[in-house]
Amino acid sequence: MGLDSAADDKEGDALKPYITMVTLGVTDLERSRKFYCEGLGWTASSASQEAVVFIQAGRVVLGLFSRESLAEDADVSAEGSGFRGITLAHNVGSREEVDAVFDDVRRARATIVKEPQEVFWGGYSGYFADPDGHLWEVAHNPFWPLGDDGSVTLP
Amino acid sequence: MGLDSAADDKEGDALKPYITMVTLGVTDLERSRKFYCEGLGWTASSASQEAVVFIQAGRVVLGLFSRESLAEDADVSAEGSGFRGITLAHNVGSREEVDAVFDDVRRARATIVKEPQEVFWGGYSGYFADPDGHLWEVAHNPFWPLGDDGSVTLP
Repeated sequence: MGLDSAADDKEGDALKPYITMVTLGVTDLERSRKFYCEGLGWTASSASQEAVVFIQAGRVVLGLFSRESLAEDADVSAEGSGFRGITLAHNVGSREEVDAVFDDVRRARATIVKEPQEVFWGGYSGYFADPDGHLWEVAHNPFWPLGDDGSVTLP
Repeated sequence: MGLDSAADDKEGDALKPYITMVTLGVTDLERSRKFYCEGLGWTASSASQEAVVFIQAGRVVLGLFSRESLAEDADVSAEGSGFRGITLAHNVGSREEVDAVFDDVRRARATIVKEPQEVFWGGYSGYFADPDGHLWEVAHNPFWPLGDDGSVTLP
């Protein structure tokens, strides 16, 4: 879409609903790379560079980048602490898979924030934190059919 | 995968690299629904409920949920402020599209955090914040071919 057509856009037309990348600000890039790539067994793309690790996470790119640099890139202060008010979820096909993931996560020395358990909405889920406290939920939601790529297609 | 096979798992085997959902904790669910669905023109799934809005964002589900409830779900304190150390990126196919998205975002009364500009890595990007300060980067990365669904496939 060029600038001319942009001028004719209606509200909400240009911004399609998708997320290309999720970037986690980290305090020690090598520690985070080890956690995700050696601990969890994910693969750093060859597009990664000295200062940034890119991981193909299904149809989304997961980026690991210095927390300070991420704040600088966004032109905001890096000051901040406590709950981030944002979580990432990794859905699996059964309760047993949730438990199996938690076995892996424990081996990777993640912080177990909430042991997997039955939850009020009828699923089974737990939370772990990465080395910087970024929260991941691992969930079985029996109401959401899961694609092979870990994606859900909502009605 | 059942419990028996889980017992034989090697490290990192059970946790496949993908993100099913990104959940944003929000202080006013209706304000956030309006921002994303009326302002940006995205569609709330019929799977949404009174206390949660689900939006199909490409192959990821974007969830909007009370910040307090999200903290409670993760069994952590909701205390926290400042930079969250995590950003979401929305890549588009050209600089002109970045500008067009920013026109939309301005109309949706988002906070413009960083006007679109050339960035050191050879792309063109800017940042806006949603009503709760969650940071979205809108970027053109000429080195990353973009799929129709807004996804990138890394080498």
